[in-house]
This record gives sequence, C-alpha cells and structure tokens, in this order.
Amino acid sequence: MKTPMKTHHRLLLTGAAGGLGSALRDRLKVNCETLRLSDKSSFGEAQAGEEIVLADLANAAEVDTMVAGVDAIVHLGGISVEAAFEPILQANILGVYNLYEAARKHGVKRVVFASSNHVTGFYKQSETIHADHPPRPDGLYGVSKAFGEDLSRFYFDRYGIETACVRIGSSFPEPKDRRMLATWLSFDDLHRLVSACLSTPVLGHSIVFGMSNNAVTWWDNSRARHVGYVPQDSSDVFREAVYARTSAPDLNDPAAVYQGGAFVKAGPF
Amino acid sequence: MKTPMKTHHRLLLTGAAGGLGSALRDRLKVNCETLRLSDKSSFGEAQAGEEIVLADLANAAEVDTMVAGVDAIVHLGGISVEAAFEPILQANILGVYNLYEAARKHGVKRVVFASSNHVTGFYKQSETIHADHPPRPDGLYGVSKAFGEDLSRFYFDRYGIETACVRIGSSFPEPKDRRMLATWLSFDDLHRLVSACLSTPVLGHSIVFGMSNNAVTWWDNSRARHVGYVPQDSSDVFREAVYARTSAPDLNDPAAVYQGGAFVKAGPF
Amino acid sequence: MKTPMKTHHRLLLTGAAGGLGSALRDRLKVNCETLRLSDKSSFGEAQAGEEIVLADLANAAEVDTMVAGVDAIVHLGGISVEAAFEPILQANILGVYNLYEAARKHGVKRVVFASSNHVTGFYKQSETIHADHPPRPDGLYGVSKAFGEDLSRFYFDRYGIETACVRIGSSFPEPKDRRMLATWLSFDDLHRLVSACLSTPVLGHSIVFGMSNNAVTWWDNSRARHVGYVPQDSSDVFREAVYARTSAPDLNDPAAVYQGGAFVKAGPF
Amino acid sequence: MKTPMKTHHRLLLTGAAGGLGSALRDRLKVNCETLRLSDKSSFGEAQAGEEIVLADLANAAEVDTMVAGVDAIVHLGGISVEAAFEPILQANILGVYNLYEAARKHGVKRVVFASSNHVTGFYKQSETIHADHPPRPDGLYGVSKAFGEDLSRFYFDRYGIETACVRIGSSFPEPKDRRMLATWLSFDDLHRLVSACLSTPVLGHSIVFGMSNNAVTWWDNSRARHVGYVPQDSSDVFREAVYARTSAPDLNDPAAVYQGGAFVKAGPF
Amino acid sequence: MKTPMKTHHRLLLTGAAGGLGSALRDRLKVNCETLRLSDKSSFGEAQAGEEIVLADLANAAEVDTMVAGVDAIVHLGGISVEAAFEPILQANILGVYNLYEAARKHGVKRVVFASSNHVTGFYKQSETIHADHPPRPDGLYGVSKAFGEDLSRFYFDRYGIETACVRIGSSFPEPKDRRMLATWLSFDDLHRLVSACLSTPVLGHSIVFGMSNNAVTWWDNSRARHVGYVPQDSSDVFREAVYARTSAPDLNDPAAVYQGGAFVKAGPF
Amino acid sequence: MKTPMKTHHRLLLTGAAGGLGSALRDRLKVNCETLRLSDKSSFGEAQAGEEIVLADLANAAEVDTMVAGVDAIVHLGGISVEAAFEPILQANILGVYNLYEAARKHGVKRVVFASSNHVTGFYKQSETIHADHPPRPDGLYGVSKAFGEDLSRFYFDRYGIETACVRIGSSFPEPKDRRMLATWLSFDDLHRLVSACLSTPVLGHSIVFGMSNNAVTWWDNSRARHVGYVPQDSSDVFREAVYARTSAPDLNDPAAVYQGGAFVKAGPF
Repeated sequence: MKTPMKTHHRLLLTGAAGGLGSALRDRLKVNCETLRLSDKSSFGEAQAGEEIVLADLANAAEVDTMVAGVDAIVHLGGISVEAAFEPILQANILGVYNLYEAARKHGVKRVVFASSNHVTGFYKQSETIHADHPPRPDGLYGVSKAFGEDLSRFYFDRYGIETACVRIGSSFPEPKDRRMLATWLSFDDLHRLVSACLSTPVLGHSIVFGMSNNAVTWWDNSRARHVGYVPQDSSDVFREAVYARTSAPDLNDPAAVYQGGAFVKAGPF
Repeated sequence: MKTPMKTHHRLLLTGAAGGLGSALRDRLKVNCETLRLSDKSSFGEAQAGEEIVLADLANAAEVDTMVAGVDAIVHLGGISVEAAFEPILQANILGVYNLYEAARKHGVKRVVFASSNHVTGFYKQSETIHADHPPRPDGLYGVSKAFGEDLSRFYFDRYGIETACVRIGSSFPEPKDRRMLATWLSFDDLHRLVSACLSTPVLGHSIVFGMSNNAVTWWDNSRARHVGYVPQDSSDVFREAVYARTSAPDLNDPAAVYQGGAFVKAGPF
Repeated sequence: MKTPMKTHHRLLLTGAAGGLGSALRDRLKVNCETLRLSDKSSFGEAQAGEEIVLADLANAAEVDTMVAGVDAIVHLGGISVEAAFEPILQANILGVYNLYEAARKHGVKRVVFASSNHVTGFYKQSETIHADHPPRPDGLYGVSKAFGEDLSRFYFDRYGIETACVRIGSSFPEPKDRRMLATWLSFDDLHRLVSACLSTPVLGHSIVFGMSNNAVTWWDNSRARHVGYVPQDSSDVFREAVYARTSAPDLNDPAAVYQGGAFVKAGPF
Repeated sequence: MKTPMKTHHRLLLTGAAGGLGSALRDRLKVNCETLRLSDKSSFGEAQAGEEIVLADLANAAEVDTMVAGVDAIVHLGGISVEAAFEPILQANILGVYNLYEAARKHGVKRVVFASSNHVTGFYKQSETIHADHPPRPDGLYGVSKAFGEDLSRFYFDRYGIETACVRIGSSFPEPKDRRMLATWLSFDDLHRLVSACLSTPVLGHSIVFGMSNNAVTWWDNSRARHVGYVPQDSSDVFREAVYARTSAPDLNDPAAVYQGGAFVKAGPF
Repeated sequence: MKTPMKTHHRLLLTGAAGGLGSALRDRLKVNCETLRLSDKSSFGEAQAGEEIVLADLANAAEVDTMVAGVDAIVHLGGISVEAAFEPILQANILGVYNLYEAARKHGVKRVVFASSNHVTGFYKQSETIHADHPPRPDGLYGVSKAFGEDLSRFYFDRYGIETACVRIGSSFPEPKDRRMLATWLSFDDLHRLVSACLSTPVLGHSIVFGMSNNAVTWWDNSRARHVGYVPQDSSDVFREAVYARTSAPDLNDPAAVYQGGAFVKAGPF
Repeated sequence: MKTPMKTHHRLLLTGAAGGLGSALRDRLKVNCETLRLSDKSSFGEAQAGEEIVLADLANAAEVDTMVAGVDAIVHLGGISVEAAFEPILQANILGVYNLYEAARKHGVKRVVFASSNHVTGFYKQSETIHADHPPRPDGLYGVSKAFGEDLSRFYFDRYGIETACVRIGSSFPEPKDRRMLATWLSFDDLHRLVSACLSTPVLGHSIVFGMSNNAVTWWDNSRARHVGYVPQDSSDVFREAVYARTSAPDLNDPAAVYQGGAFVKAGPF
C-alpha cells in the first residue's frame, strides 16, 4: 500500500493528546484536508491543517459538537488501561454511545474504533485466534472495548455506519518485553492500518488485529482482507535486544500464559 | 430430566416481580430451602420458604446486601425491552457489574444470567446459529445483554464464578405470533433450563439459547450439552391457532427477515 | 408437527403423474384449496379440488400458463434418473429456468424444488454431510439438480423468491436394499417435509435432505431447522427384512462406497 | 433400532473375562452363530454357541490362532486402566498391532475396537467435543488407545479393514458419581452400539463416543450417524440418588475440571 | 515461480479471439510445443507454433475435432458477460458438456476452466470467502459457470479428468474502478495462474480465485496451495489514480455492496 | 527472523549421526553454549562446544543419562523410515516414552520432536491440511510418530513440558522428485524452524509442518504462528531441473495420489 490519499475533508481524531494520539496527529494529516483534534483537556494549540474541539466523552452535548461537520472519526479517546469501573463506564461505555449517537445524527458514515487485544486477553499465547473467536476479556477495560465492538455492530446493522474495530496490540516506539514481540504495532503500521480502514472502498463492520509483521504472532487477520492492511514493520529487528535484557517467561505466571499479559492479573480496583 | 432437587440452601431470584420472575417464583422453591426474592420496588409479602430483599441494581450497597448469604443467583433483574440508553446503562450495565462484584466478594460461585435472543437479533430467520456466532445485537437492550455475557466471561476466567448466559427467546404462556413459534419458551421449560444450569455438576461459562422443543427453530444448543437441558414443551400445539389469527410475514419488513423481530425496528428513544 | 393447514389458495404440483407426484397428489390437498396438477402428457381427469394444466417444461409459454395464478409451487417435474444429456438439458435445465422465469413474472414467492441426494452422490457412505458441503454430483442428473439449486439461489438473492431445495433420498413404499435404510423417505414424511417447506413463516433459500428418521443416516439437517421438518417414520422397521433378502455390500464396488449407490456407475449414455 | 440380527457366523470377543466382556458375552450371542471368547487366562467353560481360544495379546502366534476363522472382532482385550508403561506397551500397543496383523492375514474385514474417553480426557467438562477434536489423552492408557485408533486408521486406508473406535465412557450397572451422569453407558446400550458397528452396511473408519442418552453429556456423535447407534437408556433416572450420596465438585480439583476425571491425576507408576 | 516450462506437447486454448484469449495467446506458447487456438469465428492466421481449429461449442462434432490430439485444455470459450439464457445455455452449458465429453473420449486429463467471480457475486464486499463457500451466483452467467464447476467435479470423480476452476476476477490491462482494486488480475498473473494449474504435479479438482496480489481482496486461496500460484503483480500501484477519477461507493447501491458489482443489477434480458 | 541467539546453556541433539542430525550439528551451535550429541552407536569425536553421550533409546537408564543436565532437547533419534514393527516399537515408541520420562524427572521443559508428514500421509496431494486434521498415517512409522505427538501432548497437559511436533517433509540438499517440490525443507530452513521452536517465548504443545517456502504446498501452518517460523528458502529454484529429469505422475499410482508418496505402498515387512 502506497502513501495514503487525502480521502477525507475533515477527519476527527479523539484522544489526540495521548500516546497513540500524538503518534497519529502528524501522520493523519496526509489523509485529510483538516484534522480535527479532540481530547478531554487542553493540550496546546492547533497547527496548520488542524482544529481543536475539546470534549468530555461522557457529555453528550460536547460530543455532539465534537462530531458535527466531520467526514469520518478515528476514535482513540477514553481510558486505555485497566481501571476502576466508574471511569470506564463514563469514558468507554457512555462515551462510545455518545459518539455513535452523534455520528448517527450528523450522518458520519465511517469510524475507526480503537479496540484492544484485551478483548481476547484470556486466550493463551500458544493459540492463534481470528476475529470470530468469542470475546474473552481480561479485565473491565477489555469488557468495555467488547461493548464498543458490539455497539458499533448494532449501528452498522441498523444505521449503516461502517466501523473498523482495531484490536490494537502494543503500539510503542519499540517492543518492551518478550510478549510485545508478538503484539507490537509500530506507529507507522498503526497509521497504515488506520489509513486502510479509512480508505478501503467498502469497510462494513470489521474486526482487525493491530500488529506489525512480526514473526511470532497470535492473531489471524485473514477475515479482514477487504481492509487492505499490509504491515511494513516487524518486531524481529528488536528481538535479540529484548531477549538480552529480559528473562524467560515463567509458565506458572498467568501473565506468561495468557495473551493479555500482566492485564490478566490487574485490579480489582 | 426429572424433578429438580433442592441443590441450594439459599437461592437469589432478581427481577422477581416481573413476568418471568413471577413464573419462576413458585417453580424455583423446589430447587432450594430458601428463595430470596428481589426487585427494585415493593411487590408484596414473602411467603413460606421465601425472603424478600429489595435492591436498586444501580446501587452497589443495596446489591451487596441482596447478594450476601446466597449460594447461587438467578438474575432476571433489569430492563428487558428496548429503551433509552440511560436506564439501560444503570440497570443492565452498572447493575450487572454490581451483581458480579457482590458475588465475587461474597464467594457466590454460580449465576444464571438472563441474557436475550436480542444479542443476536440481526441474524436472519433463515439462519441457524449457535453460541459461538459473533453477537449481532438488535438494539441497545441487546448490546447491554452482550455486555453482561462478556462481563460474566471475565468473572469466570479470572475468578472462577460459573455463569450460564441464557438467551431467552419468548417466554409467555403461549406464542403470540408466527415468530414466537420459533422462539417460544414455556414457563415450565424455562424452569427446567434454569434448574439444569443450577444443578449440572460443572457449568463453566456457557451460553444457552432458551427455547422449547419447537419444530421451527433458529438456534443450535449442541455446544451446551453439558448443561443437560431437555425441553419438554413445544410451540407446535399452538401452531394452527397462531396461523389462523395472523397473516403471512412480509419479507420486505425487517421484522420478518431478522430473528429479533420488531426489536430491529424499535427506537431510537 | 401437526396436520398441515390450508396455507395456500392454489398450489401447483409438477410431475404429478410420476411416482412421487402420485404420492403427493392426495396428500397435498389438505395444504390448499385448489391443487393444480401438471405433467408433460395427459394422465387422467382432475378430481374434486384439483385442476390440470399440462405443460412441457422446455416450452416457456406452456410453463408460463402452468404457473399463472398459483400461490406456490412444488416442482417434481423433469427427469429423475440418470439419462443422456439432451433430455436432461431440456427438462431439468431449460425447464427449471422456464419455471423460475414464470414464477418471477407472476409473483410466485415460494417454491419447493425436488433436488436429489445425487447432487452429493460422490461423498462416501461413511461420511456425514450437511447442506454446505460442496456438490459432488454422481452423474448428469445430479449436475442438473445442482444447477437448479444454484439457479434458485440466484432468484432468491436477486428477486426474493424463496426456495427449499429438497435433496430427496429414496422415496418408495419401503426401502429396497441396504443403502435405502439410510436414504429412505416415506411418502408421509415426504409430505411432512413439503408441508413444512410450504408453511414455515420464513424459508429463505434452504437446502434440506429428505430422509425419514432412520437410525443409519449420512445427512445432517441441523442447518435447516427453521424449516421445521420433523420426520415420523423410520426405515428401521424394515431393517431385518432387508438384511434377510440382500447380501453384505462389497467395498470394492463403488456403488457400496459412495452415497449415490448405483448412480455412480450409470451411463454414459 | 430393533433386536440385532445374526449378522456374523463366527464373532471374536477379546477381553471376555473382564467386566465389559462379561456384559457382552451373553448379549452378543444374538449377533452370531458362534461367539469365540478370548482372554489371557482361563476363565471357565464355553457354553452353548461359544468357543474359547486363550491368547496373550503380546504373543503374535497366539493372537494369530485367536483370530483365524472369525468374521469380525470385538476387541475389549488389554489393559483398561492407567498403569505402568511396560504392561501397556505389551497389551495395548504390541497387542493391538498383533491383532490387526492377524486380521489382515486372515481377511477379517471389520473390527470394533474398545477405545476410551481417556483419549480426550484433558478436555474440560464444560466443552462439547466430537470425533475430530485432536486427542488430549489423560495418561499412558489414553495414549495407548489413541495409538490403537491411529493404527486402525492405517489398516483401513491401506488394507480396507473397517474399524469402529468406540470411546467408551463409564460402562457399569449404574453411574457411581456425578461425572458418570455424563459418561455413563448402560450394558444394553453398549451392546446396541457394538451391534450397530457390526451390522451397519458401511462402517469405514469411525470414531464413536460410547454413552447412553444422558441429559448431561460432553460428546457429539453427529459425525458417526452412518453407524446407526440409537441409545435407549439414560443416566437421568439415577441422578437424584447420585446427588444425594455425593458432594458438589470442587473446581480447584483437576478431576472435576477435566473430562477424564480422576485419571488426570493418576500415576506416574 | 519461475518461467513456465514446456510441459505440454499440444495445448488447446479456446476463446482465443477474446480479450483474455488474446492475452494468453502469446504467453502460453512457452508452455507447449504447439498451441492450438480455437474460437467460434475466424480470427486470422496461425503464427509459428500455433494451429487454429474453429468450433462452435454447442456443436458436439466440432468440439470433438477441436479437442482431438491435445494434451490439455485452457477453456476460455463461451459467453463471459450476463446475457439472455438461450445463448448461455448453448455456449456455457451445452458447450462445456461437449468439451468434457470430447476430453473423456480423447483421454485429455487436465483442463483449466475459466470460471468466474460471478459464481459468488452475491457475497458482500466486506466478506472474505474461500473455495468451499456455497455458490451465490449473481446472474445467469454466474449460474452457468457454477454448472461448469459442478460438471467438471463429476468428470473428475467419475473419470479422473483433473480441472482447475479459475474464478477470474477482473482481468484487464489495469483496474478500471474501485471494485477492481480488489478483483484485478493482471494478464501476467493470469498466465502465471494458468501455468501453475497446467504444471502442478497433482491438480485434482480445484477451485482457485484469480486475482493478483492486491492489498484489498475478498478471496482466500489457502485451500488451493497445491496449485502453486504465486501472483507477482498488484492493483496497489493504480490505487491513487483510480481514487482520483472515481467517487466513493454509495452503500445503498447493490453494486457497491456485493462482490459481483454491477452484475448483480444486470438483466433480465 | 534473524540469526538465532544462544538461548540455551546445554542443548541435547539426538539422532546426531543421521542425515538431519549432521545438518543440525553445526548449525545448532549458535543456539547454545554446549551442544550434547547423542546417537545409538559411536560416530566420532566431540568438537569444540560439543559433548557426546551415546544412548540406546529403548534403554531407560541410558536415556536418563543422556538427558540429565540439558536445558532443552531436539529429538531426531529413532527410526525415520518405514520398517518392521519391532524396531519401531523399541526406538520410536518405548524410546520416546523413555525420553519424556527422563525429561520429566530432570525438569527439562522444552522439546522439539521430529515428527513426520507421514502422520498424515493418507491425505491427498490435492488437499490442504492443517495441524488439527485427524491423523491418517501411511505406515507403521507414521503411526509411531502420531504416538509421539499424543504422548507429548499428555506430558504438556499433565506436566507442562512444552513440545513442538515438527512434521518434517523432505529435508535433503535439494528436492529429488516432483513430490518433494511440495515437501522440501532446506537444511537452513530446518534450522530456522528448530531455532524458532527453541526460542519462542511460549511454545505450548504445537504441531508444525516442516517445509520451506515452496510455491506448491499441501500444509497450512497458520495455527502455529506463535512459533514464529519464517522460511527463507524455496524448492522453486529446483523446479525446472526436477521436471526435466522426472516424468509426470501417474494418477493411478497411490504414490502420486497421496501426500505420503511411496510410503503409502511400503511394507509390510
């Protein structure tokens, strides 16, 4: 897949102040004429080709304003780690409902929803799963992402809003540990994947695992080929360094057995 | 399957004042020594072998009190029709979280969770589905039931609390229309199914479709045979009467095409 | 399933002069007010509740007349044994096209199409197959029935005409040999199956294997439960007699190895 | 399925002195003219319609003599519990090889091989499995039975010897504990199953789970319908009594979690 | 895969005067010593290494002459667009029967049959399908290609004639619209695919989707790896240009929803 | 995948004197500090970084000594061709039991077990299979390898010893015939595969087909992606030469029809 095209006039990026949001902020400008950035709190000035609309996801009116006038949405906003249920309920459950209601009212027809590998974190690291394996969330965060996937399915079946649920693995500058050799998604591949979801002619409602072209992997994207994602990076170049600075996994530790890693032991809060 | 046994000392039935709650109230007494009944608002006096603990599912403290001291839970409580998101959020999302947290704290190890066929209501009436087909909820209510299924999966994988998610079809005294010839679940079969879920030696986390032994059906329970549910009733005896008083479905109407029936056209609220 | 209801005003039965046609002629009167009978050549007088419209299936105009005014069609007409290609082409390929074109023009919305187990006759007798196994026809006749299944799929996807493709096993007064212990379909069960296809609320495009409730079987109808067919007869009562008068199959004979039996050795003509 | 027929002239039953052997000894006489009984050591006199040929399964010459002249074999012989590897190697591995070599040399074309549910004992009691799930043996005994299944598959593919691998559950006069409510196979159903395997027109190489018509079950025989086994008994009549004298399973005990029950904790020897 | 080898002495290419026929005419010379070209009407002179045998596919005698003496057949002949049934019946149904009968009589053992993506045109563009998904033809043309697939299956199971059914996507110099970004098959990849089918040691009866290595695709060839097709081209280099000159698909248009594109709306004729 | 790392202190290679053993002897030194070599009979001197411990696999005491002190095992030892049952019983059945018992006693936690494509040799060359297809061994050797796979599954489920069962295709300097174009595994890819199995963070119990990146293949490794094997070689460069010196397969020869090639006709011994 070549350089993405300016397929959208005005594109909304939520969670723009976070780690992935920052990584996508520059990269997504090539996909649109105007990139609308949003987050809960102020995070600086809009630059050329940008505009900023702050919004609390739990506030339906603010979300409505945030969504008005955009062509498509890349929704990274909300909580992205295991946490107590109340903030997850507000940001990831009520928040995603508010987002889809706003999309429905304003006629936005395509959403890239940042789901998570923690929707299926209780599968084993020696299993290969695909998009139709039933959810096995590894925490309240994972459950909330499964909720978003189900809600977006409803908005597709009922209202025709296309969504790609991207089950992001571990998107960091480089893999931090042996587990991330399997789950790593480079920032550039993240952008390639989001671009593919935004521009493929027909998206439907699709679940895609977000990982780079790593040799070791647990996820099978063969049911999402219509998205057209072709990763270009690989964790393999970091492999030797990661092995050198980490020790072998202890198979008596659930964090080594299950795909969710340490998330399967987090909380309760 | 014979008459159920008193497999539990104290059994909690939530939503006891509703239609299904009333149907189960008498029938479940044979399964336990004490049947604790709960609903949001006062619904009369406890009878012999009963006790009543009122609770608002959205109130964690009240739910905690409701759950304390029981051996197992039959959770019918919450909203059971398509509705606006706010009450669904309170009763079916926060409510079910409160219930599982209380179960975890009090060591309750088995739950029968009233899920719904509306979790998969956007499959077609000419499709046969089983428990592992991905959710296709037909409304916010269906999405909230999918949430309960996912949350209970997490509480099983993490904390070992067994749950049967019973995707109830149409549980009424008799089938009201042609669609219910497929989805009908007699009250006695409902009780048989709940009894099986309560008493099977090992339940794990299971999804079971709740229908009687109807000739026409859309659901395949062959992956839940360990539950031991054997329906004894059938909608077939009502078939001729239903046909006589209803007209043929119009296949241009989504309510005739999809399994969810009229739910696929409900709302938005 | 109880006695069928008069679900149709005018029902067309093609191939009415053949073996199965005769078996259905009396039985189908309970399903309709008027039973229109058709075959290629004259076969006697219409009786009470009947009307006769002769037609050569390869003649579009005659087929059009035959179809005009009916509510639904049970299509047994055409060639039902292995034969040379030319008559098969006329009766089973051009003929079924003419039938569906007439149905489309006249707004007939439901067809029961007599397909055949010979669509999948090259599966082995030790294999269990269901409706989605790819065709493995055992002759030109089987290929022509596969054509009818595919054509009717197109008329459903494009024009909404519902069809049940009934892959009839061996429908005779009783099973003649050991193979028919698996494939036998009693006349009464044939009628039950056709009635179910005619009256189930939503049929879609369905493939159903037509066999009685035989202990030995090769076919799995679990993907056609929405049809509501519940067989009541069984070849088992004939088992001992069949064994007594037949010898054990020779597994070096393809007719014993494959489901199609002697058809797999028929022809070429 | 009705009373079995005398489908064989001379039928060999190995392991005739054991528990299941004794149960089948009387019952199998209706299937043949002469029932040849075999075991390792002397176990009494032949009765009318019987003959006795003792053989050590590990002794090829004795096995050859045992097999010579029979039409079909029901092979219960060998070790049927977890044990040290050496005796298993002799009786269940070398022994079954000797048996098939003798069958090949003497032209015996059908074998009913007593396999075991312990071939798949490491699946969970909340899983439903069918014949094509990969083996997960729960001990050396289970591994040896998987060996017999694989060996017989080879003798079918290469030499055309048909085998039914019957994965026997728990065949006792009645279920002893809660696990056996799922795994129980009555002696009469055992006989029905063996009779079906012996007499079905085409057996091929088939894997069949041997259980009665129990409400709770973990096994799906839908891929072996060509065998024609229809169980008539059920553990359900014993259910209440079993519950009364046993306590609820402890899900921290592997014997309660896995299908193999206590076998998963047996040995090493 | 390297340059193809001259694996055949005399190779027949039907439909040689058409678009794909012309593309293959030069390229296939490297696969054989003599390339026999055929079409219905005269289309010029044979060149070095070529011979021409004209034939009307509906004429059995002409087809017989056309086939006599060749080692293998690449069958592009017949109608390749949606059309009225009569010409499709002659060219694609009677024609393909004539071809296989001639192959059977003359001992030709391998055929590459140009099937079409329109055999499965009523799957959605957001679905990934493989060779065993049931046919969902999008027109009479697609139905006729399904007929050819089924007929060739019969000739393989009965007579051992190997066939590759190549479901060609869109084989043009370059993709014309957004749909063709998924379906495009370059002429060189078409040749690679036909060469692989002609030369792989064992072909059996195989269904292969004919597309280049496009990023966006709907088809999964993983069940045809024994064919050894490795595409080298990709529609991706045309992507930006295609987007620039076309507008976004309207999901209310069946041509945008279904894989068959505009074919799903063609006719009736 | 880059150059392997010294992931192990002391690594045991059995069957070190054989063809594959010799190929791995040099290559595996980069994976460990000390490479312990073993075979049944003396095969020369240990070189730098090596040590030699001879052992007869059928001798438990010798195997125990062989295994003591190693971190991981690459088990190529035993018989690797079709042979009489007695030596297979000793080396491949008793031998692999002895190996796993020694591993259990000495706490060795990872084994790479040289299984074989002959475990599934009776699948057809036109079928694509994956790890979960049931075994169809093509001889006693194949049955013994299936035994090793099942035994290692038990040692994983019961004792947590991870094993990769590598179903080696044809590992030679180059492919010898047309069948090997599909089955060929270069020595370097063999080493890459073994290295991946030794070093992947979590191996579990995995079945992997051992072939290079050949265009024609019959095996699908998509369920073993967690192993991280990425082949770099291909039989394709040898294709033309192989075709030039061999003739086309005769499909009447079982060796051409089945994946096992000539093995399906070997023996009996």
